[in-house]
Order: sequence, then C-alpha cells, then structure tokens
Amino acid sequence: MAFVEFRALDKKSLVEYIQHTPALASKLGDKVDDLDIREVGDGNLNFVYIVAGSAGSFVIKQALPYVRLIGESWPMTKERAYFEAAALKEHGHWCPDHVPEVYHFDRTMSLIGMRYLEPPHIILRKGLIAGVEYPLLAEHMSEYMARTLFCTSLLYHSTTEHKRGVAEFCGNIEMCRLTEQVVFSDPYRVSQHNRWTSPYLDADAEAAREDNDLKLEIAELKSKFCERAQALVHGDLHTSSVMVTQDSTQVIDSEFAFYGPMGFDAGAFLGNLFLSFFSQDGHANQGNDRKAYKEWILQTTEETWNLFRQKFVSLWNEHKNGSGEAYLPAIYNNDVLLELVQRKFMKDLFHDTLGFGAAKMIRRIVGVAHVEDFESITDASKRADCERQALNFARMLLKERRKFEGISEVVSLVRKSN
Amino acid sequence: MAFVEFRALDKKSLVEYIQHTPALASKLGDKVDDLDIREVGDGNLNFVYIVAGSAGSFVIKQALPYVRLIGESWPMTKERAYFEAAALKEHGHWCPDHVPEVYHFDRTMSLIGMRYLEPPHIILRKGLIAGVEYPLLAEHMSEYMARTLFCTSLLYHSTTEHKRGVAEFCGNIEMCRLTEQVVFSDPYRVSQHNRWTSPYLDADAEAAREDNDLKLEIAELKSKFCERAQALVHGDLHTSSVMVTQDSTQVIDSEFAFYGPMGFDAGAFLGNLFLSFFSQDGHANQGNDRKAYKEWILQTTEETWNLFRQKFVSLWNEHKNGSGEAYLPAIYNNDVLLELVQRKFMKDLFHDTLGFGAAKMIRRIVGVAHVEDFESITDASKRADCERQALNFARMLLKERRKFEGISEVVSLVRKSN
Repeated sequence: MAFVEFRALDKKSLVEYIQHTPALASKLGDKVDDLDIREVGDGNLNFVYIVAGSAGSFVIKQALPYVRLIGESWPMTKERAYFEAAALKEHGHWCPDHVPEVYHFDRTMSLIGMRYLEPPHIILRKGLIAGVEYPLLAEHMSEYMARTLFCTSLLYHSTTEHKRGVAEFCGNIEMCRLTEQVVFSDPYRVSQHNRWTSPYLDADAEAAREDNDLKLEIAELKSKFCERAQALVHGDLHTSSVMVTQDSTQVIDSEFAFYGPMGFDAGAFLGNLFLSFFSQDGHANQGNDRKAYKEWILQTTEETWNLFRQKFVSLWNEHKNGSGEAYLPAIYNNDVLLELVQRKFMKDLFHDTLGFGAAKMIRRIVGVAHVEDFESITDASKRADCERQALNFARMLLKERRKFEGISEVVSLVRKSN
Repeated sequence: MAFVEFRALDKKSLVEYIQHTPALASKLGDKVDDLDIREVGDGNLNFVYIVAGSAGSFVIKQALPYVRLIGESWPMTKERAYFEAAALKEHGHWCPDHVPEVYHFDRTMSLIGMRYLEPPHIILRKGLIAGVEYPLLAEHMSEYMARTLFCTSLLYHSTTEHKRGVAEFCGNIEMCRLTEQVVFSDPYRVSQHNRWTSPYLDADAEAAREDNDLKLEIAELKSKFCERAQALVHGDLHTSSVMVTQDSTQVIDSEFAFYGPMGFDAGAFLGNLFLSFFSQDGHANQGNDRKAYKEWILQTTEETWNLFRQKFVSLWNEHKNGSGEAYLPAIYNNDVLLELVQRKFMKDLFHDTLGFGAAKMIRRIVGVAHVEDFESITDASKRADCERQALNFARMLLKERRKFEGISEVVSLVRKSN
C-alpha cells in the first residue's frame, strides 16, 4: 500500500501511487515516465483516470467521501469503493466476458485499478441516443444477468455462503439508503430534490404523487428492495452502467451492489430501454424518423428478457443437482414438478422486473436524477410529450404488472402507448 | 469473566463461576454457601440449572458445542447462546412483561444467567395436554408478537438500524440451517430422520412427499424464510417455548432468532395451537370429553390472531410519524391510503402466518421432531387418527392459504376437519 491514510489523488500523486503499487506498475511494464493520464469522471460521484503507457493501460477510480458534483457538504461514504470492487470481482468471476477485470483494490484509498475499456467502447446510453444498433446487446446482457443473478442466489449457493454474502453487503447501507430515497420515496412526495419538465408536467407529477394505488404498489417493491436478499445485484443497472462496442458489452459502476431482489437489476435495464424508446421521437429529424430504431429497441428488450429467462432456466437445469439449497434434488426430482417451480419462479421474477422497471422509469422523469435520453431533447414541450408517454406507461405497468403473462404483451403496449 | 476458556459446567464448578461473577452473585445477596442447584434441562440441546439461595434465584443456561441428547457426534455451534441472549434482550426491551430478564451473558462460556420462572410456571404445551385453560394467553401472546415483530421491523426501525441487525443475526446461520432442514426439507423427501406413527400413516407420509402442489408452496415459504429479513423473529415460537401461569406468559428459548418473515413466529404459535386441538380427542376420557376445551383452544387461536392484528395496527398508527422507514409519513399521509396499505400488509402477513403454521404442523407429524401433544397418546391407532386429521388440514391450509380472508374461516374449517 502506497499511502497509509486516505488522500484524494491528483495526476501527480497518482503517478507516485502507481510507482509504489506493483499490481499497477507491472501492467505498464514498470515504465511510468511516459504516462498519459486523463481525468474522465463524468459522473457525479467519483474521480476516474485513464492511465496509458507505451506498454499497457488501466483505469483508476477513486471514491471521495462526498458527492463530487456537490462537494464536501454532501458526504457519502467512500466505503462504496469496497463494495464496488467486491461486486466487480464476484460478478466478474461468474461472467468474465462482460465485467472488466479488477487489477488492484486499496481500501484505505477507496481506489480501484481496473481494465481500461478502450475505444470504440462508449456508454450504451449515448449509443442509444445516437441511434446506434448493437446486435449482440440482448445476447450479452441476458448472459450477464442470468449468470450473475443465478450464481449469487440460493439456486447455486449453500445457505451458509449466502448468509455470509448478505452480511457483508449489509455494510453498503448508505448506497441502499440513497436508492430507497431517490427511487422509492422522493417521486411520491413533495421533495426539494425532485424536478420535471415544468410547467408541462406539473399536473402529471402531482397526479403520480396522489395516486394511492401507485403508492400501495411502490411500498411493496420498496419492502422487497429493503428486505429480500435474493442475489448479489448490481443495484444500478441502467444504460449508463454499460459500455459497448459492436462486439463487446461491459458492465461497470457496481457501487450500489447488495443482496437484493433479482428483478431490481433486470427491471433497471429493461426500464431504461423503455425510456430510450419513448425518447426517440424527440431525436427524430427529417433525415431519420427513428421508426426502425424504435422497433430495434423493442425487439432488443423482448429478446433480452426471453434470452435471460432461457439462460437462467438452463443454468438451473445444469446445476439442479449442485450445492444450491433452494430446491433440493431429493424433493424437486421430477420433471413435472421442476417445470412447475421454474415456471412460478420466472413468473414472479418477471412481475418483479416489470415493477422495478416501472419504478426506475418514474423516478427518472419526476425525481432528482434525470436521463440524457430526455435531457438532450432541447425543445421542452417536445421533451415533455415524450416524458409524459413514458410516465403514463410506467404508472400503468407498476399497477398492472401482475396481469402480464409475457414480455411480448408488454412490448405491444409500449408500442400502443406511443 | 470467571473462566477464560469454554468449559462445560457441573454443579460444583457452577458455584465457583457464580462466586466470580458479581452480576450473578449479587442476585443471591452474595451468599453462595446455602445454594440449592438443580439441573432441569429437559430439552435436547442445553444444560439448564435452577440456582436458588435464601436471598434470590436465577436460571443458568449453558449451550454445549454439540446436541446434548446425541452427544459429541452431532456438533452444533455453542454460539447459539450469543444469539439467544441478544434476542432475549432485544425482545425483552420491547416487551418486558413477557420475556424473562437476562442478568448476565458470557460469550466465552456460552452461558446465560436469567430470571427463574418460579412455580406455578409450566411449559404451555404441558398445560394444554392437561386441559388447562389460560384466560390471558391470547392477550399476552398477541402483545408479545405485536410488540417484538413491529418494533424490530422497518415499520419502526430506520433502514440503517435494520441492516445492522440483519448483518449481526446472519451469524446465527447454523440454527437457520437446522430449521431449513427439519421444517422445509426433510418432511418432503425420504430422510433417515423422519418418523411417523407407522404403519398407520405410511401412506399419508408418502402422499405428502409426492404432493407436487404442496412442494411448490413449501418452496415459496422456504424462500421467504431464507431471504426475507422482515423482523427479528423468535424463530421457534411453539407452545414449549412459552411458560405460563394463570396470570403470566413468558417466552423463552430464542436460540433460533434471526431476521426473518414475521409470519414464521405467528404461524408457529397458531400451528401449535391447532396441533393441540387435533390431539385433544386422544386425551379425552369418560371423565372429560374435552369438547369444551377444544372450543377454548379455537377461541384462543382466533382471539390471538385478532388481537395481534389489532395491536400491530395500533402500534403502526401510534408510530406512523416515527423513524420507521417503510411507510414515510410524507407519502402515506392520508387516512384512506394508510388503511389501504395496512389492510394489504396484514392480509399478506395473515397468509404467510397460515402457510408457516401449516408447515410447522406437517413437520411435527412426519418429520424428525414430534410434539408431546400427540406422543403422549399411547394408543397408536388413536394417535394416528388425530395426527391424520391434523396433517390433512395442514396440507390443505398450506396450499389454499391465500383463499382465507380471516381467522374465523380457518377456525371453522378446523372444527369441520375434526
């Protein structure tokens, strides 16, 4: 360890840190005199440096004990880096193709050294705004979700391993609290943090806050989020937590990871694809009406869920005689019964996914943190029209989610809502 | 601390231990030369000593690192004493009237010093077998369950406090695993530990093991048991974990405590009252047909649930503006909505309670550990008749639990099943 106490690094001290850290220096062929270092943290929370030398490269991500965007007046535990690194390692173990490798973690410094996702990797959300198709996205994201969620659940783990993991990630409470507030609470009450495209959506935001049925349902989802330790979830799996090229899909930024409901991850991803869909009319122009692209988004959403379900059940069948303790082989040893429990499990997970997905959509329209998909639509009236469609659809989905039998029904309704 | 390493105490070394432990010695007015010490552990797990002097008394409970009944060949963590003491203190804090006071805890020795529940306190199960009515039982047990479950849930706690508690009690994994095995697994598979009143119930036990719908439902309950950290539950709240007199009701033996679903406690208690009901025909004789007593049991069961629901909702209303984070006042601030969420919460809890109650009944008839209610019926054929009624009712209840609107419907069906 190069430093015995935490300090925020700058470009100069970072070089010194690298020199004293063999796990990092070795990635550069132990040459630190020709380094190109760029600070690229576009998020609100952390410092992110790309470090490139003639013999290699990596990314350094350092968490500060406050929200970077606001400053020291909004403290936030830098221990989140510990949980991010732990989740990256755990998820990377189960799905190395879609999780960047961690080279080094320093708890004192809240610092992660990890693979640099070289160009042309970009943030998926930016690709979706630009109207770029990613033909392998559904394949890759379904693989990532199926493997990480299955392998960190009681379908694969013994209860002893599971409780050990749950206890450890209970420590990531501050990040869980933040999610509770911004996803499950603020959008449903008057809060100084909330904003929306005003005055266009004033009545819509108020209607959401006064919808008793909606608030009944969000309470059930919040309770699952707070109480149900089903798997080690990423915890923030929106389209800015994914970096893509035409061949590669990499999931990053797992500082919100904890043992929670699987549907929270699947819902975050699907919900953000729906947000992208509803934003497309705002990006259409004479050269490109985005109609074909909107269809690609819906197809990708449908395919992601269907492939996810298929891969998840395949993993289950493959490991049905393994050490997972949820469904012991001596009890669930006949094909009829196994299919029955799998059907029920996947149906419940589907409804959770729709519910959490809808909640993630709502909070991005009337809560504190918005998405660039909509924000980049400069005409406020046009933006509000897109957002209203998304909000109305999400409110319906949250309340009616149990009525849907499959993803194709949901996708049809999205199409109709537009 | 009197000893620096664990050792199993006997009467002689116990006196020495007390002499060196002021928290205990002071309870005896520091007089240890006139002590009356009796070993009364009738359970399978622990040593229990009643220590009485001229100036005071207490109970010493020591956990050994194996199952007492079997011996060192069946190891079991003595750390369970730590969780028992922690739960006694936490539950005692919220409900001092119905939880005996802990005077002393020694983690190294796995030893608890606590209030001696003096005669005429007896184990509730023995009272029920003897046909004794306890007019305050429903009042007291509903109070105990409402207060301990409400006050250790997110209805009362902040999420920070909650996650701290959850993480701590994740440590009680060995006891959770034992419950998983004996309640949710063994009864539904062939296991060397299972037994039943053979040959009478051979076909019944087999039918339970081959009932796919039943196995589908027990999987859902097991998942709630393993994954849902709703409140600090006692974890073994059957009628032998309760000591009673006509005026006093005291809950003991919380070594299975962990953060789990509330319905697991409420179900254990109600399910064991139903077991008592179904056993009564086996205890009837010419002098006492037990008909009136059976009605008292059913009334008490109904009253326990109704009072529990009432007290639980009262606590909720009382603390609705408190620090509990499940239903924030700024969101759930109108009477119509609050009633709506309370109704939904209590309905879900009711169905959980019926499910777990049924599971606890089934495991006492075809699993490893039976109950004295039935075991004390010497005529095996008569015993099997009683058990079969209970088993059939429980299988129905587990599968159909969501169809019941209130406890009176359930009780009517119990009456009809007899």
